[in-house]
Amino acid sequence: MKAELISTGTELLLGQTLNTNAYYLSQKLTTLGINVYYHTTVGDNPERLETALEQALQRSDLVITTGGLGPTLDDLTKDTVCKVMGLERELHEESLIWVQGFFAKLGRDMPENNLRQAYFPQGSRIIPNRLGTAPGAIVEKGEKIVIILPGPPFEMQPMFEETVESFLQEKVQVTPETTLHKVYRVFGMAESAVEEALGEVLTTPEGVSIALLAKQAEIHVRVAAHAQTALAAEQLLAGLTPKIESKLGDAIFGIDAEDMASSVGKLLRATKLSLVTAESCTGGLIGGAVTAVAGSSDYYHGGYVTYTNGLKKRLLGVERATLTKWGAVSAETAREMASGARLRTGADIAVAVTGIAGPDGGSPEKPVGLVFVGLATPDDVLAYRYNFFGDRQAIRALTVNGALNRVRLYLLDKAREAN
Amino acid sequence: MKAELISTGTELLLGQTLNTNAYYLSQKLTTLGINVYYHTTVGDNPERLETALEQALQRSDLVITTGGLGPTLDDLTKDTVCKVMGLERELHEESLIWVQGFFAKLGRDMPENNLRQAYFPQGSRIIPNRLGTAPGAIVEKGEKIVIILPGPPFEMQPMFEETVESFLQEKVQVTPETTLHKVYRVFGMAESAVEEALGEVLTTPEGVSIALLAKQAEIHVRVAAHAQTALAAEQLLAGLTPKIESKLGDAIFGIDAEDMASSVGKLLRATKLSLVTAESCTGGLIGGAVTAVAGSSDYYHGGYVTYTNGLKKRLLGVERATLTKWGAVSAETAREMASGARLRTGADIAVAVTGIAGPDGGSPEKPVGLVFVGLATPDDVLAYRYNFFGDRQAIRALTVNGALNRVRLYLLDKAREAN
Repeated sequence: MKAELISTGTELLLGQTLNTNAYYLSQKLTTLGINVYYHTTVGDNPERLETALEQALQRSDLVITTGGLGPTLDDLTKDTVCKVMGLERELHEESLIWVQGFFAKLGRDMPENNLRQAYFPQGSRIIPNRLGTAPGAIVEKGEKIVIILPGPPFEMQPMFEETVESFLQEKVQVTPETTLHKVYRVFGMAESAVEEALGEVLTTPEGVSIALLAKQAEIHVRVAAHAQTALAAEQLLAGLTPKIESKLGDAIFGIDAEDMASSVGKLLRATKLSLVTAESCTGGLIGGAVTAVAGSSDYYHGGYVTYTNGLKKRLLGVERATLTKWGAVSAETAREMASGARLRTGADIAVAVTGIAGPDGGSPEKPVGLVFVGLATPDDVLAYRYNFFGDRQAIRALTVNGALNRVRLYLLDKAREAN
Repeated sequence: MKAELISTGTELLLGQTLNTNAYYLSQKLTTLGINVYYHTTVGDNPERLETALEQALQRSDLVITTGGLGPTLDDLTKDTVCKVMGLERELHEESLIWVQGFFAKLGRDMPENNLRQAYFPQGSRIIPNRLGTAPGAIVEKGEKIVIILPGPPFEMQPMFEETVESFLQEKVQVTPETTLHKVYRVFGMAESAVEEALGEVLTTPEGVSIALLAKQAEIHVRVAAHAQTALAAEQLLAGLTPKIESKLGDAIFGIDAEDMASSVGKLLRATKLSLVTAESCTGGLIGGAVTAVAGSSDYYHGGYVTYTNGLKKRLLGVERATLTKWGAVSAETAREMASGARLRTGADIAVAVTGIAGPDGGSPEKPVGLVFVGLATPDDVLAYRYNFFGDRQAIRALTVNGALNRVRLYLLDKAREAN
């Protein structure tokens, strides 16, 4: 099946929004064994969308559009699809009830404009949108399929996963070639160090490719296996796993969707230990990352944000003398923050961070990017020094992963001792 | 000047690489006053690239290609440009010396493939590539300009900034049309409510367009003004500002890059008041957002993450009776969290949140999305109830902006009283 993607949105052409939809959908379609031949982006302009859609339907079997569904956009995409495919619009009662309910729940009157969101090209299969007012649609005519999805990724992605994916799976059962992907997520090594460590493993067998990707605060080792069947592709992946794991060891913190916080959460659950945080330069982002995982209240109790020296003393009991002698950004302060947080909350483990995120506040002795992680456990109170590189945002993201990685390595040891 | 972008690379169509080049170049061209009408992505395939390039040259004045220059790609892009524009290839001596020098520096023999990297469409202006072996080229024929750049962003971006930007600056001086943009950022209104409130303002004068965009946890009102000169475009924008501001009032929290945390920071600075946070369902994200702004330690002291009832009592002094009678997610708990945080830190203002971010933990009386914001100030201790809609991530993002928005509205009043 030949597919292409059309993204609608002037904000994409202005460089105000990064087109993550094309990236996400390409990944999904590739996994389903559907070949994507083109991405096209046009503005919120009916003529140019029409031209793009006509051309796409001439050369491809499947066209997925994102964007142009908002109540303020005059139903750009749905109207254009009707025009190009020669279809009338029809009211979809359930969608009308849904949009009405959406506003009822908010306790507001439904603006007239939202009525349009319940009209679809005739014969459409509706794609419910749990997270917004614009449902999508699957439109089939002859051999051609157009799938209409909204632009906001947080609405579009669940709609794809809950409705579109299974629809396409059925469609493509006739062409069974498959590519499977597996991503090993690595922290604490530079991209070139990962490459060196992998060495000969990078010379892969037929049908397999390995790519390294530097992401913010982590490295991805992405393995793709292409074979006639899903089983054969899985076997290709399985053959590589022990080799990659033996080369990278504990630097791999997660596979595929497992991020650092999920990995730490799993280990806290397994070891039945509880965690608290004491944050300075990250301002709460470590707690934010830990609690992004649903159910994290089972092992995460909370913690402190002590952005000023005053609160480091007042809330965590960091000694005035420590701050004077060593400074707020020091191993000593990190240790006192961690042990203060642990004792004052009664949790098993406390992780603390203090550092210079920049752009200001650096000095020759303590440059921007210098970060100390304190770790207080039932066994010990330790501090670790890091020199991170990047802008404020990058340094804070690296600090979050660096701190949680220390917790992870401690918990890995505990879990191994227990076995 | 009408422009479009063509990205070449099978990795983009497979969803292995996010197309940040189109995003980056769109931003750059928009800033230069050049209008981008299309983005097209094709694989490493000569026929499809040829079709895309032909079409682009028919409808646009400027085409920028990225990718398809690697030594293993058979000079895909340069050959296709020659074919479509009817140009011969010629050797560029300096580039040959550069590529040879690159390999000499690495102490390696130059593979035969790299020789091709020194050939360009005749009459090209060469774009040096400090960070890789593939130089780019500016090719002009008649009224049409094609700019050829490599795919890796860390090579492409310096090449654009060091050579292409000034070339284009000169070109667009002849055609001085400019588009300027201004984004009004709104919280607390649905997209359709913003549209209704704006009403007749949406019927814009010649040269101006207004688009509404639903972003995560906020709405953007994007105004574009197109005129012969930057001054005229600025005047068009300036003419609309009072109209938009009078319709949306305090729901506008920021302009362009000013997010909610920057806006609150500015007001805290102006009123000389200090802020602390007490977070439950957001786990630290409010503090994280506030401290994303460099220099925030001037007004933000820190705070608490009290994810469990135990820590709400222990760290903030929330009464056991309150938790038993009203529950952790209640106006009463939000108020006690806020006043506990304010008193225990000595800050002027404390903002607290407690809510149900889901996906579990909801009930008919207290559904997922129910959030209370507590606000303790020198004047009062108040609580606000919200019913947010979305998944866990969306509800937490809305809670961050909802809490900070309460602080902002309080500070706006204070600032007005002072005047």
